[in-house]
Amino acid sequence: VTALDLAVIGGDGIGPEVTEQAVAVLQAALAAEGRPEARLTDYALGAEHWLATGETLTDETLEALRGHDAILFGAVGAAPGDTRVPSGLIERQMLLRLRFALDHGVNLRPATLYPGAKSPLTQPRDIDFTVVREGTEGPYVGNGGVIREGTEHEIATEVSVNTAHGVRRVVRDAFERADAGERKRLTLVHKHNVLVHAGHLWRRTVEAVAADFPEVTWDYMHVDAATIFLVTDPSRFDVIVTDNLFGDILTDLAAAITGGIGLAASGNINVEGTAPSMFEPVHGSAPDIAGQGVADPVAAILSAALLLEHVGEAGAAGRVRTAVWAHLEDRADGDRGSTAEVGADVARRV
Amino acid sequence: VTALDLAVIGGDGIGPEVTEQAVAVLQAALAAEGRPEARLTDYALGAEHWLATGETLTDETLEALRGHDAILFGAVGAAPGDTRVPSGLIERQMLLRLRFALDHGVNLRPATLYPGAKSPLTQPRDIDFTVVREGTEGPYVGNGGVIREGTEHEIATEVSVNTAHGVRRVVRDAFERADAGERKRLTLVHKHNVLVHAGHLWRRTVEAVAADFPEVTWDYMHVDAATIFLVTDPSRFDVIVTDNLFGDILTDLAAAITGGIGLAASGNINVEGTAPSMFEPVHGSAPDIAGQGVADPVAAILSAALLLEHVGEAGAAGRVRTAVWAHLEDRADGDRGSTAEVGADVARRV
Ligand SMILES: CC(C)[C@H](C(=O)O)[C@@H](O)C(=O)O
Ligand SMILES: CC(C)[C@H](C(=O)O)[C@@H](O)C(=O)O
Repeated sequence: VTALDLAVIGGDGIGPEVTEQAVAVLQAALAAEGRPEARLTDYALGAEHWLATGETLTDETLEALRGHDAILFGAVGAAPGDTRVPSGLIERQMLLRLRFALDHGVNLRPATLYPGAKSPLTQPRDIDFTVVREGTEGPYVGNGGVIREGTEHEIATEVSVNTAHGVRRVVRDAFERADAGERKRLTLVHKHNVLVHAGHLWRRTVEAVAADFPEVTWDYMHVDAATIFLVTDPSRFDVIVTDNLFGDILTDLAAAITGGIGLAASGNINVEGTAPSMFEPVHGSAPDIAGQGVADPVAAILSAALLLEHVGEAGAAGRVRTAVWAHLEDRADGDRGSTAEVGADVARRV
Repeated sequence: VTALDLAVIGGDGIGPEVTEQAVAVLQAALAAEGRPEARLTDYALGAEHWLATGETLTDETLEALRGHDAILFGAVGAAPGDTRVPSGLIERQMLLRLRFALDHGVNLRPATLYPGAKSPLTQPRDIDFTVVREGTEGPYVGNGGVIREGTEHEIATEVSVNTAHGVRRVVRDAFERADAGERKRLTLVHKHNVLVHAGHLWRRTVEAVAADFPEVTWDYMHVDAATIFLVTDPSRFDVIVTDNLFGDILTDLAAAITGGIGLAASGNINVEGTAPSMFEPVHGSAPDIAGQGVADPVAAILSAALLLEHVGEAGAAGRVRTAVWAHLEDRADGDRGSTAEVGADVARRV
C-alpha cells in the first residue's frame, strides 16, 4: 500500500485555515479505513505569495505539482479593495493556468441542500444535482483581442473555442455520472438557438454519447430557461452538463439556492489521468474574516471528500460525507463553533 | 396632433390574443389622455407564417416596418415538439434579424415584484430594478464557425464582438435611466476577470460615462456573483447594465424571482431614433395554451406601456401602469379571469 501523495495549496485569506481542517478530516478518514496517512507537500501560491515574490505560478512549481496524486486547494485572491494586486491577475495566471496546464477538462460541482442550510427559495424541496462543467475551453481560452483601444472605434472580441475532444470528454463524464446515479437524468444546458456553431457541436455530441448510455434519459435546456428552473423547480435536475462560462454562472446560482457558497465543493478533474486533479471549495478567500477562526471549513472538507472519491478511496470519501451530514444535522439549530471546532467535530465522526 | 402609427406583430400561439388586449388598453389610455387613436397595421410573421409561406422576414416587410413609429410585438415560435420548424430558425431569421436590422442597441427589461405575484424567494422584499441589456453585439452577432464538422477534430467557435459605439450607447442609456430614478444606482455586470478584452472595454466605458452623471453611484459585479445576489438580495439592484448574453440570462432569472415571465415586459430600443423601437412581453408563444383565452395579457399590456413611454406619451403610459397595478392588487387573492376579461378590466381602469 502506497500512501496518497497530496499537494496542498492553502492560498490566501481563509484558504489556509479551512484547508487545514480539510486535511485533518481527510487523514482521519483514511485512518478509519486502515489506509496509510497521506503524504503532504505545501505550496505557497496566491496573492500574498505574489506580493512577497512577484511570482504567480512558476514553471518549476507547476512541474512539482504534476508529481502528486492530487491537489487540495483552499482559495486565492486579495481583498477586493487591495489595489496592489491587479484585478484578475491571480485568477488568470494561477487559478486558470492550473486548470489549463493540468488539463482539467471536467469541473465538477455538486449542489446539495444540506440539513440546516438556509435556501432563499420558498420551496427548495430536495435539491441534489451535479453540474459537470467543461473546464478548459469556451470563452475561457483567452482568445480574442482589441483594436483601436481607447478610441471611439475600439473593437474588443472574445472567442469561445469548442473542440470535439473537449466536449466529448466532459459529456461522457457527465453521462457516466448520471448512469451511476439513481435518477439517471442528464440535462444539456446551452444556447444553441443563438450560439449555433458551438451549440450544435454540444448537441450532436450529447446525441452521440447518449447512445452508449441507454438507461440515461436526457433533455436540452437553454441557459436562460435553466436559471428559471433553478429557482422554481431545482429538484428536477440530476446531472447538468454545460460549457465553461454557462457552468460558471449556473454553479454560483446553484450554490446560492442551496444556502450559499459556504458549503459548495468542487473538483477540477483531469479525465485522462495525465496530471493531478485539483479539489477546492467554491467560495473565495474572504479576506474580511480571515485569521479569526470563524470561517466554515465544510466546503473545504467536502472538497476533500471529492478528492478521496476521485483517487479511489470511496470508503474514506463516504465516511467524510456521512460525518459532514451528521455534523450539519446537529448544528442546524445552534451555533456551528469555530473553524477548528467544526473540523474537529467532523473528524471525530468519520 | 398626428396619430401614433404602430406596426402590430401578433405572431404565434398566445401572441395574437395577448397583443389584442395590449392594443385595446393602449387605445383606451390614449383616449383618456385626449390623444388621437393610434393607427394600426398588422404584420403576419412567425412560425405559422413561415409554415404557410416559407418566409421568415422579407426585405419588403422589413422596409414597411421601418415606416412606423414603433412596433408592438406578441410572441413567435412553434410548439417545442413541432419538427417542421427548424430549431432556432424563427428566432434568428426573424426576431434577432429585427433587432439587428432596426439597430435595437438597448434591450430594456424592468423587473418589478407586482402585487399578488408569487416570488419563489422567501425574502423578495421590494424587487424593482431594470436590466439595460445590449441588443446588437456580443456573442449574438453570428460570428464564428466550424471546421472538420462531425469529425473527432471538429472545432466550433463563437466570437463575441464588442464595439466602443455599441457599448457606449447602452451604458449612456443605462446611466440616464439611473439618473432619472430615485435611487440613482448602476451596476455593471460582466466577467472581466476572464473576458478581459470585452470586459475592459465595458469597464472603461462605464468609468468614462460615469463622469457625466455625478449623482449616480455605480459598482461592478461578476455575472456569476450577480446570480447569487439576484436570489439573496435582489432589492440591492436599481439599474443593471450588461452585455447581450449576460443580459439574456439575468433577465430570465429576474423574471423568475418576480413571479414568472407571465408579467415581464421588454423594449428593444433604437437609441438614435433611426428606426422604430419594438416592445414585447418576455414570455414566448406558449402553444400549449394558445387559443383558449386563458393567457395572461399583463406582460403584453406592460410592454404597451413601455411603448407609450418611449414615444413620449408618458401620461398614457402612467395610466396603463397604474391600472395594471390596481388590477393586480384586486386579483391578488382570486382568479384573474380570461385573457379578454383581464384586458377589459385594465382598460376600464386606465
Ligand atoms: C475566479 C474565476 C476565474 C473562476 C471562474 O470563472 O471559473 C471562479 O468564478 C470559479 O467559478 O471557479
Ligand atoms: C429567443 C432568443 C433568441 C431570445 C434571446 O436570446 O435574446 C430570447 O431568449 C430573449 O431573451 O428575448
